[in-house]
Amino acid sequence: MYILVTNDDGVDAPGLLALKQALQNLGDVVVVAPERNWSASGHTKTMHKPLRVEKRTLRDGSPAYATDGAPTDCVALVMLGLLPEKPALVVGGINPGGNLAHDLTYSGTVAAAMEGAINNIPSIAVSLNADNRADIDFSPAAEFAARLARRMLSNGGLPPDTFLNVNVPDIPIEQIRGVRITRLGKRIYRDELVERQDPTGRNYYWIGGEPPSGVTEEEGTDVWAVAHQFVSITPVHMDMTSHSMIAHLKTWEEDNIPRIPHP
Amino acid sequence: MYILVTNDDGVDAPGLLALKQALQNLGDVVVVAPERNWSASGHTKTMHKPLRVEKRTLRDGSPAYATDGAPTDCVALVMLGLLPEKPALVVGGINPGGNLAHDLTYSGTVAAAMEGAINNIPSIAVSLNADNRADIDFSPAAEFAARLARRMLSNGGLPPDTFLNVNVPDIPIEQIRGVRITRLGKRIYRDELVERQDPTGRNYYWIGGEPPSGVTEEEGTDVWAVAHQFVSITPVHMDMTSHSMIAHLKTWEEDNIPRIPHP
Repeated sequence: MYILVTNDDGVDAPGLLALKQALQNLGDVVVVAPERNWSASGHTKTMHKPLRVEKRTLRDGSPAYATDGAPTDCVALVMLGLLPEKPALVVGGINPGGNLAHDLTYSGTVAAAMEGAINNIPSIAVSLNADNRADIDFSPAAEFAARLARRMLSNGGLPPDTFLNVNVPDIPIEQIRGVRITRLGKRIYRDELVERQDPTGRNYYWIGGEPPSGVTEEEGTDVWAVAHQFVSITPVHMDMTSHSMIAHLKTWEEDNIPRIPHP
Repeated sequence: MYILVTNDDGVDAPGLLALKQALQNLGDVVVVAPERNWSASGHTKTMHKPLRVEKRTLRDGSPAYATDGAPTDCVALVMLGLLPEKPALVVGGINPGGNLAHDLTYSGTVAAAMEGAINNIPSIAVSLNADNRADIDFSPAAEFAARLARRMLSNGGLPPDTFLNVNVPDIPIEQIRGVRITRLGKRIYRDELVERQDPTGRNYYWIGGEPPSGVTEEEGTDVWAVAHQFVSITPVHMDMTSHSMIAHLKTWEEDNIPRIPHP
């Protein structure tokens, strides 16, 4: 029995180490993480080129595997036979920033949990809703991740294609008001396009802007929970079908639209 | 009024050209596509480095923009101001392979439609359920994409955060039995890990194996539809919450699990 830990910030990230150290009280932990940062890499899977896997030593002296692939690849490599056995649990994180609402499909941390769920392994993505300040304290998030992992291991997992997305507010653990089971809320993105010229006079563009905010007033959402000092646990499933729209669109099966004339 | 066309196979892909040519009967079409292939890149958004945008000429002599970003970036660049106006419709494709069931979060084609939907623009992802044979006929898929685009433009779009995922069977248009509004089905992945040694004796891994199959017996799914010679249109929404699990997990809000002792 072992827990597979990965992330999207890279094998040297402090959030990964904090998560690994909290989980090792529950059983063996194997770390397989990207060499580099893959933030906002989505559910990228590397099939067009080979992947390297190298042994590393984490800052606490424990062994880890580093790959030149994405977070999804770290999980896929293990599922496809890099290790002789499959893990009992996949945990991605701790991401030093919230993965809330619409962030899910962008997030590499969440992608690791998606890949676990697709492979029928109980999976958790863990994020700390911190801005990118320098001295982030990952210990409250690590503590809640370990409690949840213990619950997952003793409860025998989740329905197929389902995983848990966890966001922890960036406050001292004694100020956390509890846990809320939430639905995904609404993000407000504040991206801006910066256009500049390089030294040779060629234009380039940079997607920048402020970090996203969110609609904090809708009680029961993940965005609401972390804004109100609760740990948010959202059950997420891979079925993105808009079931409510199927009946509405049924008339579109009558393909009575005139053909488009071709040139 | 213009339609934004992008893809994940790159600006020179024949599926992109077929789509653009079919849609230009409906109005202006602007192509902003990646320079290279981004298959299985998920909802990747490039925020850690600048992006280049260059003018290109497609094989029919028409202009296009090529970027070194992902499909998501192509849409994001336009939404953030690369062009003076936002598009009336975003269409990604035509992908020379199905994007069915669990493929959604991996697919760059679908990611383009996700990015459109997150930006409140009616969006469609179009895929041809073809194996990677050399002489793919994109014209049936292009024809259906244009019919659907016409319907979307005249109907005024979809609810927030919703887009359409379209898969067309790879058969002559006269053999297509019609259109089905579907739910996402089940993929069966057949990935295999190939382990080899490079000329210097170092190990490498390659995620390969057969293309995925799917559960074709479940009527009403996308996998079922294309296997039965129907065009599949799945309404997809960005809310991945497993609403049915929220009530089930409510007791987990009682955080009565003993703390994990820290080392």
